[in-house]
Amino acid sequence: MLIVQDPACKSFCYQRLKYLEQKFDFHIMFNGSSELEESSRIIHRDFYNIRKVDTHVHHSACMQQKTLLRFIRNKYNDEPDTVVYIKENGSKITLKEMFDNELKNSAEDATVDSLAVHAIGSCFHRFDLFNEKYNPFGQQLLRNIFLKTDNYIEGRYLAEITKNEIRNLENSKYQQVEWRISIYGRNKNEWKKLSNWVLNNKLSNARVRWVIQVPRLYHVYKKRNIISSFQEFLTNIFEPCFEAIKNPEQNQEIFSFLQQVVAWDSVDDESGISKYTTKGGELPSPDKYVSDNNPPYSYYAYYMYINIRTLNDFLAARKMRTLAFRPHCGEIGNISHLATMFLLADGINHGVNLRKSPVLLYLYYLKQIGLAVSPLSNNALFLHIGKNPFKRFFKIGVNVTLSTDDPLMFHFTDEPLLEEYSVCAHIWRLSTVDLCEIARNSVIQSGFEPSFKKHWLSFPERPEIKNYENNPLKTNVPNARIIYRRKTLEEEISNIQRLANHEQYT
Amino acid sequence: MLIVQDPACKSFCYQRLKYLEQKFDFHIMFNGSSELEESSRIIHRDFYNIRKVDTHVHHSACMQQKTLLRFIRNKYNDEPDTVVYIKENGSKITLKEMFDNELKNSAEDATVDSLAVHAIGSCFHRFDLFNEKYNPFGQQLLRNIFLKTDNYIEGRYLAEITKNEIRNLENSKYQQVEWRISIYGRNKNEWKKLSNWVLNNKLSNARVRWVIQVPRLYHVYKKRNIISSFQEFLTNIFEPCFEAIKNPEQNQEIFSFLQQVVAWDSVDDESGISKYTTKGGELPSPDKYVSDNNPPYSYYAYYMYINIRTLNDFLAARKMRTLAFRPHCGEIGNISHLATMFLLADGINHGVNLRKSPVLLYLYYLKQIGLAVSPLSNNALFLHIGKNPFKRFFKIGVNVTLSTDDPLMFHFTDEPLLEEYSVCAHIWRLSTVDLCEIARNSVIQSGFEPSFKKHWLSFPERPEIKNYENNPLKTNVPNARIIYRRKTLEEEISNIQRLANHEQYT
Repeated sequence: MLIVQDPACKSFCYQRLKYLEQKFDFHIMFNGSSELEESSRIIHRDFYNIRKVDTHVHHSACMQQKTLLRFIRNKYNDEPDTVVYIKENGSKITLKEMFDNELKNSAEDATVDSLAVHAIGSCFHRFDLFNEKYNPFGQQLLRNIFLKTDNYIEGRYLAEITKNEIRNLENSKYQQVEWRISIYGRNKNEWKKLSNWVLNNKLSNARVRWVIQVPRLYHVYKKRNIISSFQEFLTNIFEPCFEAIKNPEQNQEIFSFLQQVVAWDSVDDESGISKYTTKGGELPSPDKYVSDNNPPYSYYAYYMYINIRTLNDFLAARKMRTLAFRPHCGEIGNISHLATMFLLADGINHGVNLRKSPVLLYLYYLKQIGLAVSPLSNNALFLHIGKNPFKRFFKIGVNVTLSTDDPLMFHFTDEPLLEEYSVCAHIWRLSTVDLCEIARNSVIQSGFEPSFKKHWLSFPERPEIKNYENNPLKTNVPNARIIYRRKTLEEEISNIQRLANHEQYT
Repeated sequence: MLIVQDPACKSFCYQRLKYLEQKFDFHIMFNGSSELEESSRIIHRDFYNIRKVDTHVHHSACMQQKTLLRFIRNKYNDEPDTVVYIKENGSKITLKEMFDNELKNSAEDATVDSLAVHAIGSCFHRFDLFNEKYNPFGQQLLRNIFLKTDNYIEGRYLAEITKNEIRNLENSKYQQVEWRISIYGRNKNEWKKLSNWVLNNKLSNARVRWVIQVPRLYHVYKKRNIISSFQEFLTNIFEPCFEAIKNPEQNQEIFSFLQQVVAWDSVDDESGISKYTTKGGELPSPDKYVSDNNPPYSYYAYYMYINIRTLNDFLAARKMRTLAFRPHCGEIGNISHLATMFLLADGINHGVNLRKSPVLLYLYYLKQIGLAVSPLSNNALFLHIGKNPFKRFFKIGVNVTLSTDDPLMFHFTDEPLLEEYSVCAHIWRLSTVDLCEIARNSVIQSGFEPSFKKHWLSFPERPEIKNYENNPLKTNVPNARIIYRRKTLEEEISNIQRLANHEQYT
């Protein structure tokens, strides 16, 4: 943070970013039409049939509002007598009773309006209201029944919705998804339950990879005496993974599910402030962290990182694929989050706050750390789309892609990812070359296995090679664009190296 | 135009518009949440299942780029030996020969990129380049074969594409369309040919009405000696209609097609400037107008209007439905176009130039003249979407709706109208109430018969009643919104009347 705030450093980075942005404008001015020509000569490929990965979607909001409404209505009609819930007094409640008696709300007459999950207009800077949008018809009970994996019906409804979404992906032919699903850290059984839900419902699919999202809710469980220390929280999250890798035989379901998990995420409202900071070692280690207050963002970040890293060493020693750390970062809140994750993360979600720090933005550019940006989500929650820095980041050459975040809350059409691309293309007048480059970035940022990436991009099998090759026949991105990006980055890095060696700045 | 430019009048209108805009903000501030509540209590209706009419679509660009590409490729594979064209030397060319020999371009390898009909980024302020986008693969020959009604295959391909689009409309359940199709005025046979094309191909459908668009190309035909005077141009356009109405027996196809036509349009690049003006009677009457130069916008406008009006009297005398005049106006070019059409038109397309004249904008508001705005089209051609005045017009209470203009050139998804609404909803954070009001406006502005409108809106059968009733069960627009709109307009009109009577301004 000392470097991030250093005035000379800020000026330097600001100038370099300005240069990179205008250099791209020049590139398009002089080479834009030849790029487009090259692109139109590529046979069999266009924006519609190149591979796109939606790298940032919360699984419980992955369906369209219309789809969820139809599903709920169909269930109400087709299986009214299914017991969906047990009251505290032990009485069993059927789906029909739930609507007719408990909620006094006929699912028959329901509309997208009464479902009330869409978040445009009503949630700006209100993460609390946004979280309530997960409740269909404003009812937490219905969230539990329809959008949770661990409930009285063992998550059957959510599994059926998921299967339907997988069918849509298969029909779309060129779309893949990475769904974020929660491990809370409340107890050690969560992994087993989640794994069983995925496996028993046969949700393993070549189109789908999973990202484990850990909500930063230590303080909630601590206050309720569910856990006794931050270490217990961490243990609940990570120990089952270590165990499963150590003894696959005894932990078949977790071991098997882990094959489909590609990354970890840390999630919550970043504008929430902790009582503590991590400055000067003020905070104890996790085993001694027993405060009822939530630790700060960087504390969560560091201890997730160090556990993930250890787990990865463990995996690598067994020649298994490692997991990336791709947390929510820079959506809102302090820019120090972005400094933290620059040091720890493989890629981040959002990152739009990088617009507030030239130093961090320049560093993210130099290291090509992936940003999964969701402008429609930002537009509903924290940043008007007219002010979204996506286009500027893209021009500079930051490794950005587009993702939907929560189709249930933000999108109108049955093709949410295409809708996200479309709105951005219109607002920022993105060319087909731009769109294909953004889609290519989504594959690179994703956790799909190297064999897939190779097939989609002619990406080298050896993941340590960062200097990705491009095959226009696969990506529809003209080589002119990729060469521009690579040369620009190489020049920028060698410039920095010269400066570091006290040579003259050219 | 004297009034439009009067400084005091400008100030007055500017103030009233400012007031109306801010009054709407207040309305939403205090009644927005109760509107939303009212709307969510309306059973069976939401934004997805209310009626929407796409009131401004050029028929030859009504399909999605992906759809056109697939159609061309299928034809190339399924009927390679169909003769599609006769060369000047009389030799017949098949579809396969056309691609393989004439164009040296395999339809097999074609992509959306090589089709090159999308207009984002490349056509800004270039109406000429935009017009070339109608040529698939940049080939005018292919436009003739695939997108024209009058060619060697008698427009069979375009008819097949049209039937496919009608099927899509039927599947969408709640969408109607008004397709614009050209009568050029080159000869008197155009009407008969066009009518035969529609009827023989069985394109009459309850989802579709037709708008006759007349391109302002007198000068082109005159220079080629196709016509000898402006009167001949007008006669070619209007006489067949008069004849058909007078003698339906002898003109069955035109008479029958006219039942499906609802309006007239006048189209071309409005930034094109005529050598002449209509000021002070400088220009002769149409029979004496024999110049090779194109007459000005207002000359076309007046003579179309006066012919339409006479035709309407003729229709009304026979108890037949009259046709509206809904020209392109205020897309670009001089604001005098908007003054002209304020006097002559029933509704206009675009009208975004009203942002440049407070007086005209206020007049269009007071008279509730319909504007079919196409922000995505404007964004590609003349006005960045961030500067589009749609939201401001909507807040003021101008009778605006959203339309697609040219899905072939502007849209990415298979639901172009929904995409248009979606982009606008995101950018301007339109609520579900706003969206439903805009959709309701589209029905009101459309030329669908009163019986349809009554069914969709509970609109009174008597079209002379302008004070439309609202039925929330049909429109999903809460009464609170409609009452606000009506009261605000009534107050504004009575205020003007007081002022006109020299009473004190309150």
